[in-house]
Amino acid sequence: MFIDGLIESVAEKDNPSVVGLDPKIEYVPQFIRTEFFTKNGFTMEAAAEAIFAYNKLIIDAVADIVPAVKPQSAYYEMYGVHGMEAFRKTADYAKLKGLVVIADCKRNDIGSTAACYSRAYLGETEIGPERRRAFNADALTVTPYLGSDGIEPFVKDCDAYGKGLFVLVKTSNESSGQFQDLVTQSGRKVYEEVARYVNDLSAANRGKHGYGNIGAVVGATYPEEARSLRKIMKNAYFLVPGYGYQGGTGESIKSCFDEKGLGALIAASRSIILAYKSDRYKGRYPEEEFYKASRDAAIDMRDDIKNALKSI
Amino acid sequence: MFIDGLIESVAEKDNPSVVGLDPKIEYVPQFIRTEFFTKNGFTMEAAAEAIFAYNKLIIDAVADIVPAVKPQSAYYEMYGVHGMEAFRKTADYAKLKGLVVIADCKRNDIGSTAACYSRAYLGETEIGPERRRAFNADALTVTPYLGSDGIEPFVKDCDAYGKGLFVLVKTSNESSGQFQDLVTQSGRKVYEEVARYVNDLSAANRGKHGYGNIGAVVGATYPEEARSLRKIMKNAYFLVPGYGYQGGTGESIKSCFDEKGLGALIAASRSIILAYKSDRYKGRYPEEEFYKASRDAAIDMRDDIKNALKSI
Repeated sequence: MFIDGLIESVAEKDNPSVVGLDPKIEYVPQFIRTEFFTKNGFTMEAAAEAIFAYNKLIIDAVADIVPAVKPQSAYYEMYGVHGMEAFRKTADYAKLKGLVVIADCKRNDIGSTAACYSRAYLGETEIGPERRRAFNADALTVTPYLGSDGIEPFVKDCDAYGKGLFVLVKTSNESSGQFQDLVTQSGRKVYEEVARYVNDLSAANRGKHGYGNIGAVVGATYPEEARSLRKIMKNAYFLVPGYGYQGGTGESIKSCFDEKGLGALIAASRSIILAYKSDRYKGRYPEEEFYKASRDAAIDMRDDIKNALKSI
Repeated sequence: MFIDGLIESVAEKDNPSVVGLDPKIEYVPQFIRTEFFTKNGFTMEAAAEAIFAYNKLIIDAVADIVPAVKPQSAYYEMYGVHGMEAFRKTADYAKLKGLVVIADCKRNDIGSTAACYSRAYLGETEIGPERRRAFNADALTVTPYLGSDGIEPFVKDCDAYGKGLFVLVKTSNESSGQFQDLVTQSGRKVYEEVARYVNDLSAANRGKHGYGNIGAVVGATYPEEARSLRKIMKNAYFLVPGYGYQGGTGESIKSCFDEKGLGALIAASRSIILAYKSDRYKGRYPEEEFYKASRDAAIDMRDDIKNALKSI
């Protein structure tokens, strides 16, 4: 099942982190941009191809360090159909390199429509007598606002196709409390109600380590909330965005893990993919070898997390 | 501004309804499927091209009846990159025919990522010195779970580009109450808190009729809730799914309108695009003229709504 495979990959790399592939054309080093703009002009196609070339170099540089990557679909959709082609190729390339691919799409809708999103990213689409894959991810992020009938179609496909799901519970952004932290008459906050539902889904079908395929998105920027959520969701793996650029640190993500050091996958995007432009790594390599800075940043992030986890 | 243009189109057609373009290849009449499968096999490409051909015939048949169409992105994403190309072409074709296009994508993320989604559907993407449009919609649906920083980037682009937004407030599906109806300590339900926030956004920039560009998704299947929401959101237009196939009727959507008969756009998808297979219209036309059944269904829906609105 998905979650056992993920835990195995984390163990193999001795690293519970995931690289967010959220590329803008402005992030891509000039030598790659020039190559594709010269060939195809300042077009969506050129931008998308440059982004895929950039992603490939980063994937190659981190594939032996991290267990997973997480392409965020907005960054591809903004380059239109060509961008979605880059998203598809990025997912395929990362899988080819042995990485777990989490499609960070935050999709959601009523049941019949959620089933279509699920086919698009986790399952298969029927075309006459054939079944084909649209985007081939290992897991998908989804939003809970519509309740169970917007989640269950994805859960079914997780069971059928060996895939995983991460439901937004407590997000990393500043305004996440506006609706998520509203206290309900039960005395629980909205996100705690979502957490209980997510854990029930995950507990229904557990793997070797007690975790199920249905995980939760819990922001690195709210360590106290993460601590209480770790108790509410004993069976749900956390996908933890907000490390690095958004302010999360090794210390702040400790509370997302269980006592065995399992239970959380820490995501960082800009701090890895833009490492070559950051104060810490800038100038360490020539621009043509920008991806070596991403590799260094991925190693440093791994070590920072491992170090923090020593004192769990 | 978007909302004034929408209200004008509704007045021109004397019809506050919108056709949901949520096509599966199984919905497409056999003669179209055969044409594209013969040419390209049972491929994503063939399915996507068949779907676009189907959409075009429906758009042509209803363009003088309805003011707007609402393609739902899941139904296109499940056909992969080719499906997204069909989505793009469908939006462009509908605009060419003078229709307002609401991209029903229910996107959402933290601010920096929400800004990318906004560029993809409402704004423009910078590529070197150029600015290009990825998918050219007039309005977009979004999810509120992440709070204001996941909504504001869209609001900014609505102002900058003359676009509209519909934020999920109370959805049409059966489990919508699971989180949306939780009662908070203020005594208000979660969806009522979202409603107040949405109305504040819309009230900040109102057009000729008192409505702003930031609307709300309110399901046709919850008429009582819609009645109270109409009072909470005096400045927000409603996009109302759930008419027809999901059980909403002319009577059940009355409470979404204000006393002038404005304030709501009623959406139906399967009952229009699949009219040729429904009990009511089946056999009325040869399969090659299936779109005439969609036209009849769009006219009947218009008349049903107009009739219900007589007694507001």
